[in-house]
Amino acid sequence: MTIIKAQEVIKNEFQKRGEDYPIKDGERTLPGKYYHSEEIYKEEIEKIFYKYWIFACRAEELAEAGDYKLVQVEDESIIILRETETEFKAHFNVCRHRGTQLCVEEKGKFENNSIQCPYHAWTYGLDGKLKAAPMMKEENGFTKDKCALHKVHIHNWEGFLFISLAVEPIPFEVQMEGLMGKWADYNLSELRIAHKIEYKLKCNWKLILQNYQECYHCPGVHPLLTQLTGVQSARHDFEDGAVIGGYMELTKESMTMNGEAASKPICDVDGDDIKKVYYYSVFPNMLLTPHPDFVLFHHITPDGPGKITNNCYWLFHPDAIKDKNGQAGIKSAVEFWDITNKEDWAVCEQMQFGTKSIRFTRGYYSGREDILHKLDKELIKVLGHKDPHAEFDSDS
Amino acid sequence: MTIIKAQEVIKNEFQKRGEDYPIKDGERTLPGKYYHSEEIYKEEIEKIFYKYWIFACRAEELAEAGDYKLVQVEDESIIILRETETEFKAHFNVCRHRGTQLCVEEKGKFENNSIQCPYHAWTYGLDGKLKAAPMMKEENGFTKDKCALHKVHIHNWEGFLFISLAVEPIPFEVQMEGLMGKWADYNLSELRIAHKIEYKLKCNWKLILQNYQECYHCPGVHPLLTQLTGVQSARHDFEDGAVIGGYMELTKESMTMNGEAASKPICDVDGDDIKKVYYYSVFPNMLLTPHPDFVLFHHITPDGPGKITNNCYWLFHPDAIKDKNGQAGIKSAVEFWDITNKEDWAVCEQMQFGTKSIRFTRGYYSGREDILHKLDKELIKVLGHKDPHAEFDSDS
Amino acid sequence: MTIIKAQEVIKNEFQKRGEDYPIKDGERTLPGKYYHSEEIYKEEIEKIFYKYWIFACRAEELAEAGDYKLVQVEDESIIILRETETEFKAHFNVCRHRGTQLCVEEKGKFENNSIQCPYHAWTYGLDGKLKAAPMMKEENGFTKDKCALHKVHIHNWEGFLFISLAVEPIPFEVQMEGLMGKWADYNLSELRIAHKIEYKLKCNWKLILQNYQECYHCPGVHPLLTQLTGVQSARHDFEDGAVIGGYMELTKESMTMNGEAASKPICDVDGDDIKKVYYYSVFPNMLLTPHPDFVLFHHITPDGPGKITNNCYWLFHPDAIKDKNGQAGIKSAVEFWDITNKEDWAVCEQMQFGTKSIRFTRGYYSGREDILHKLDKELIKVLGHKDPHAEFDSDS
Repeated sequence: MTIIKAQEVIKNEFQKRGEDYPIKDGERTLPGKYYHSEEIYKEEIEKIFYKYWIFACRAEELAEAGDYKLVQVEDESIIILRETETEFKAHFNVCRHRGTQLCVEEKGKFENNSIQCPYHAWTYGLDGKLKAAPMMKEENGFTKDKCALHKVHIHNWEGFLFISLAVEPIPFEVQMEGLMGKWADYNLSELRIAHKIEYKLKCNWKLILQNYQECYHCPGVHPLLTQLTGVQSARHDFEDGAVIGGYMELTKESMTMNGEAASKPICDVDGDDIKKVYYYSVFPNMLLTPHPDFVLFHHITPDGPGKITNNCYWLFHPDAIKDKNGQAGIKSAVEFWDITNKEDWAVCEQMQFGTKSIRFTRGYYSGREDILHKLDKELIKVLGHKDPHAEFDSDS
Repeated sequence: MTIIKAQEVIKNEFQKRGEDYPIKDGERTLPGKYYHSEEIYKEEIEKIFYKYWIFACRAEELAEAGDYKLVQVEDESIIILRETETEFKAHFNVCRHRGTQLCVEEKGKFENNSIQCPYHAWTYGLDGKLKAAPMMKEENGFTKDKCALHKVHIHNWEGFLFISLAVEPIPFEVQMEGLMGKWADYNLSELRIAHKIEYKLKCNWKLILQNYQECYHCPGVHPLLTQLTGVQSARHDFEDGAVIGGYMELTKESMTMNGEAASKPICDVDGDDIKKVYYYSVFPNMLLTPHPDFVLFHHITPDGPGKITNNCYWLFHPDAIKDKNGQAGIKSAVEFWDITNKEDWAVCEQMQFGTKSIRFTRGYYSGREDILHKLDKELIKVLGHKDPHAEFDSDS
Repeated sequence: MTIIKAQEVIKNEFQKRGEDYPIKDGERTLPGKYYHSEEIYKEEIEKIFYKYWIFACRAEELAEAGDYKLVQVEDESIIILRETETEFKAHFNVCRHRGTQLCVEEKGKFENNSIQCPYHAWTYGLDGKLKAAPMMKEENGFTKDKCALHKVHIHNWEGFLFISLAVEPIPFEVQMEGLMGKWADYNLSELRIAHKIEYKLKCNWKLILQNYQECYHCPGVHPLLTQLTGVQSARHDFEDGAVIGGYMELTKESMTMNGEAASKPICDVDGDDIKKVYYYSVFPNMLLTPHPDFVLFHHITPDGPGKITNNCYWLFHPDAIKDKNGQAGIKSAVEFWDITNKEDWAVCEQMQFGTKSIRFTRGYYSGREDILHKLDKELIKVLGHKDPHAEFDSDS
């Protein structure tokens, strides 16, 4: 695997850098249409959300074989299910008979290892194979073996279930190179959801990713956060590809209301990691923030160019969740991030509204925002667009 | 009239058939876009709802001369009025002066045999002729006789008022050949509305017509209904043209909560009809179900590709409505069909959502669903589209 | 200045006219698409609302230096502020860094003569100049002096602040020729807002302007108003260009519930003006109605082809507002116009719905509505469209 090598290269490059990253001529923001155009949004759905590996849910949400959860990706409803103790499957939620949605409840359990359509009782196995189709004769083009549920690819990375709606996705390890071997000591798969908040935001999905990748805004936007992590300490780990991120150094123990640890360190976290909080954008729909004592992550679901649903999760070690005395720590971590999230959402929404102006052509990046330009470049590459800066003369 | 002949032909063809109707190669469902595309929906409005004879309201809803009701057909508001005891008229609800809507109340009575615009008091007769236009001089292109209300054609079939917005519609008897002479013994014009329920559904208007034309779904969807009519008893009468339908045999007396008749047979219903319940789709916007003792019908109003309003009416003989002891029967018929309707709406909505998937290309019909393919063919013919199956290779 | 001359010419022309204005052949209404088409609406926004001088707010709403108000013009949020006691400025509400909206509160005060972006703390003067941009280096295309807020032109006419979003607008005095020197005796800048009502209407913005320019509808629509001003007394002052209007003669003292003056005459109103109420359409977004004793004006904000917000203001002399005994007069003026407004809104909304019909091609104007045809012509000229009547044969 070439992944570890890539990480080393990036780390070395990073060592060579000084505090501020250089912004080269013409490294300006995207034009406003990338946040507002219905056409570009449709392209993003087709070329990114229907093709890339995207985060779906945590494995623990499907506790037993037969448990399922529906995940909506734009127009597509996807059934994510646990087939056995260790195996997961995902299917398009569409009967092969006449296209009826098989399940409507967001969560549930399939009885008798069967998925049955409520309309005409076509019945599938958990693996998606058509087991029974009453009254259908195998003639004139219909055969049962042609009519398995349409497959969705699924991959379990450390208890995070990722799916790809592509017929033939690129290997998970290639897209998610930046995650390979990362945070191995944290034993992320052992963690459990201690809390979840759903946020509805009026902004483009990319603005949330961008907001996560710079701390230029922290002094003005996050008075509490800047007490716990030094703005000057922000560093990049990865800055190319789908996984982009870095870390900041903790000045206290963790990111909580009072800066005290919310719990003891999760699993085997040790060494430098005890003093770090990571901020990773797992392109396109996840933000991942391991702390020494808990993990915060965001699951972003776009709903048009100017709207998203953001589900924010707090993962703790099961021992901390079970521990009666541990609840105050969890509460403090939730409260801290809920305040900080809302501070971010407000400015992201204001950026959404402002960039719609006829006068906004493109903005300027500071040296603190160079990684945003990398995200922009990744997007432009994936969409197959020309460099949008070519549209403008240098003075605009 | 060639109508009776056509009925005979169809009956004979039916006699030759066995229990299951053959599905020929390539008789697959429509592609999903026919339920979701805004463009196809607009075509349907123009080529079907603005051209065909469509159901408007019952004659009895306009009890006296001068009574009117507004019927909305997509963007068009139509005034349906009773001109005399026996004559009905229909007009576009648009003043010829500057286009103002003449009436806004859904029902009412025109006083003084006049329709007066509220804006500048232009005044029309019930026949639509412009009677007065204050201050207007008959010069420079304006003359009163050019400015009658725009006409809508209207036809009274057995107390059901049908309208056509076409300038020159095809004869009612040609489009509705399948209704000519049908249920003559029922004296449908004598019946009166005993109950009405308005349903708002999130599905395409065609899915409701399709759902009405197959009982393949009955065992799973309608536990109560299958106790009253044998699923195997479903037969077709008509399967070509705008009027398509058939019947099922009653195992009890009628379709009510306990299977007992809701009333004595309506008018002169006798013979085989005493044991039959009919299911007719009167393309494009009506479903008609005569029972021996009452008539159920649905009036479908599309509101975009994925939304409809469905007004469901229960017609009974006036004697049954007036009879105090008859109310329990009416209630039982209403309750039975309200339950059954909602069972159908649920699966229709699930089919609407599922067919939006990128993976749904087209589905399979069983031998129990061949009449749906006939409805599809009628639609494709009316829209002037190519056979949509030509888009696909045989294996998709 | 040529303005006074233009007024004289028009007055002379008017003197020559008889009671009814001639309607020439082919002077018919606009086709329905001008009230319903999304494309034409977008054109109107670009060519009119983003180019013309439009009313923004009253100067008095910004009492002190640093006070601001946000005005929304379609997608554009504009900051209107008082820079000094006598100077006003207007800016696009868009940070030059990454496009964030600077202010979200509808009204407020800028502290320290500074406008600061909440996201990354870029800071501008009240004049829009960029004063500080933390961490930004003046290299690679970024310099502070290139990054002033985008300018909006602003003009104070008698306490009415007008703005133009054009980069280079035509002179205010040219577009608003009809307002120059008009109502000089009224000292409009001294008046203050005594009351405001916000109306949400379901009609095209032009229908409100048209409704304001004819009293053909008054007898049927406004029973109260016709008691206070004679329908036959309506005369035009201006009928070409952006400012179009006329007056009616008062039969009592003013337009109030009982016809009594709401206050003593404002400032130096005297002579003929004591018996007149003016109805001016200040194209595109204002209706202005000076009475002898108060001024009514409407601020129209379109929100799509079929929706507007209309803010209606009653201006009185400050003495009348302060006077305890003056409140009954203000209340009576407000009540009278609130009733009259709602009478107008109802027919405008009915015209909006009716003109959507496929059968509405174009309507007829009476001699009482010739000024509406002038408004139509102004619109067609501004949009650069061909005469829409050329689409039709003379008989349609």
